[in-house]
Amino acid sequence: MATDTADLVNSADSHVLEPIDLWQRELPESMRERGPVTEVVDEREVVYIDGKIVRRDPVAFMEAIRPPGAHDPSMRLADLDEQGIWAELIFPSRALWVHLSDDPALQLACSQIYNDWLYDEIMSRSPRFIGAAMLPTLDTADAVAELQRNVARGFQTVFLPTSTPPGRDYNSEDWLPLWAAAEEAGISLSFHIGTGADPKVFRGLGGAITNHVASFYPAQTTLCHLVASGVLEAHPNLQVSFVESGGSWLPAVMERMDEAQRQYGTWFLRPKLPMLPSEYVKRQVHVSFQHGRAALAVKDICGVDALMWGSDYPHLEGTYPNTRKVLEGIFEGVSDDVRKAITGGNFAKLFTVPQPQTA
Amino acid sequence: MATDTADLVNSADSHVLEPIDLWQRELPESMRERGPVTEVVDEREVVYIDGKIVRRDPVAFMEAIRPPGAHDPSMRLADLDEQGIWAELIFPSRALWVHLSDDPALQLACSQIYNDWLYDEIMSRSPRFIGAAMLPTLDTADAVAELQRNVARGFQTVFLPTSTPPGRDYNSEDWLPLWAAAEEAGISLSFHIGTGADPKVFRGLGGAITNHVASFYPAQTTLCHLVASGVLEAHPNLQVSFVESGGSWLPAVMERMDEAQRQYGTWFLRPKLPMLPSEYVKRQVHVSFQHGRAALAVKDICGVDALMWGSDYPHLEGTYPNTRKVLEGIFEGVSDDVRKAITGGNFAKLFTVPQPQTA
Repeated sequence: MATDTADLVNSADSHVLEPIDLWQRELPESMRERGPVTEVVDEREVVYIDGKIVRRDPVAFMEAIRPPGAHDPSMRLADLDEQGIWAELIFPSRALWVHLSDDPALQLACSQIYNDWLYDEIMSRSPRFIGAAMLPTLDTADAVAELQRNVARGFQTVFLPTSTPPGRDYNSEDWLPLWAAAEEAGISLSFHIGTGADPKVFRGLGGAITNHVASFYPAQTTLCHLVASGVLEAHPNLQVSFVESGGSWLPAVMERMDEAQRQYGTWFLRPKLPMLPSEYVKRQVHVSFQHGRAALAVKDICGVDALMWGSDYPHLEGTYPNTRKVLEGIFEGVSDDVRKAITGGNFAKLFTVPQPQTA
Repeated sequence: MATDTADLVNSADSHVLEPIDLWQRELPESMRERGPVTEVVDEREVVYIDGKIVRRDPVAFMEAIRPPGAHDPSMRLADLDEQGIWAELIFPSRALWVHLSDDPALQLACSQIYNDWLYDEIMSRSPRFIGAAMLPTLDTADAVAELQRNVARGFQTVFLPTSTPPGRDYNSEDWLPLWAAAEEAGISLSFHIGTGADPKVFRGLGGAITNHVASFYPAQTTLCHLVASGVLEAHPNLQVSFVESGGSWLPAVMERMDEAQRQYGTWFLRPKLPMLPSEYVKRQVHVSFQHGRAALAVKDICGVDALMWGSDYPHLEGTYPNTRKVLEGIFEGVSDDVRKAITGGNFAKLFTVPQPQTA
């Protein structure tokens, strides 16, 4: 399908599917059976990390979110072209559960293997594929080293989960070296929702809908930690994105943080921030959404700069294969400059994106 | 201060302060020491329920949220007059922690004592005081009985916490008799945030701000449970309020519930709802906020009917003693009909409010 390059969008959220045997192939002998392993049992795809079951999804559902482009870079480019997408930020699929291991060495090794594969097999195939290097979460020195190793070869952002291991909330001083390293390296942080802990929190009637909503709470908590503990104050050049979180909650969190800071006055506030929480958000925070129109209604509160669209390719909760139609619906009646900022311009401020060739 | 009655507002959120010895005075001998007990230790007010510490707040902070009107009905009316408030929905203070007991009999007895005191000592003093009858949460039959006992003497709503005991999420079939009883009695449900579990979830740097934000997650989860499990579908006349939750998150939750229902299609959805989740919200759900302006920006998405202002008197995160000024700020540039609906009209649709006398 021919597309005027001026209409191409950038997607702030997509997923690539790693080979099923990636970690068994690449892990050192001693860890081989402890990396992510997938087995089919009773028509369910069961994923183990370190011998622990971390996922159990219907095979037919998993197949529905695995078009050839999920793992084949050429097919992926064809899908991007067909959907009218130019560049995209890429997150993992099978590696999403690595953070559920409680072994720092295993987390680090699995992260390194994923990042190497992403670099060699995906990013090398096109500059339109902008990969997020995944970082381990149990040891800050490991995370800093993996950040620096990947930035040195051109990675522009790192992927961190929105849920953290016990005792390592993002307001912990244990994380300070990572924030400093990211700012120094000049890269942004990308927190992807539904990661770092089992995202199926609620069981029973209506659980699928409730869990889809609840998956944005850890993003909101992470945002609060980074603002309220003073991370964004200390690192004014650090840009932070919350991916697949939706966008329309952002003003609610901004207002509620401001309400707490203003109303508690001299009570309980530690540290005391020189600016309002919402001001840090406007300066340094971005959120990605797939379908939300409510985000547009509140853009004057959070600022247009904060909003980025993402396809979530190839997931069902994303816009594939109806991206063009979805975007038309979201941006009906919205001015061109706002649409362009949210569907690509803000992305191009965070990341170096190659110039589209004229059609 | 003279106020034109046309300018009077109704507050959907306020708190009354029970006598410190209410439960020791009224509980049967066998339970006397297990009800809420308050002691001062090291300049902290320590609250015990059933021998377990449930709160430990600085005495000076607690004193700051206890103007005479918190416990004295005449002073309270004077404060309402001075703040330009006509009627208000009243929640407890010390009884807020009763739901942290895991003894059904103790929860029921403490709830009955609070409701009797509220009725006799507060509501009887003025029809402007609209009390919410608190319900126990461990036994549905107890909750139904306490609802019916209080509706029989004129209570117009019941107070339920937003967090539930283990295994009794609001999507559980165990709760079905309560929803049916409320609809049959023709009263609304009022879920107050920060209740049913320790609201101090996050510790360390920035915790006060993060906890203030996180206190709305259980309200959002409760809303999802009621919508996604089919409670609002089954009880189309049941009206539900989320109190002190803020309002501007509502469109985000509506959109995200709709996204899940639409995108998961035939996957995982149980029950399958005949309408979109957002349609139930527009028909049956209300939220109260103190300071939020963002809610006004999204009113066309959630509907003006969903939004109610509340003072949260006499708490610091509320508008007292600056209610008039706060309301001026929130509603600057907002049309009269929208302002009147949110500051009182929607309240008067949910509750029978006495007519203000002309000044």
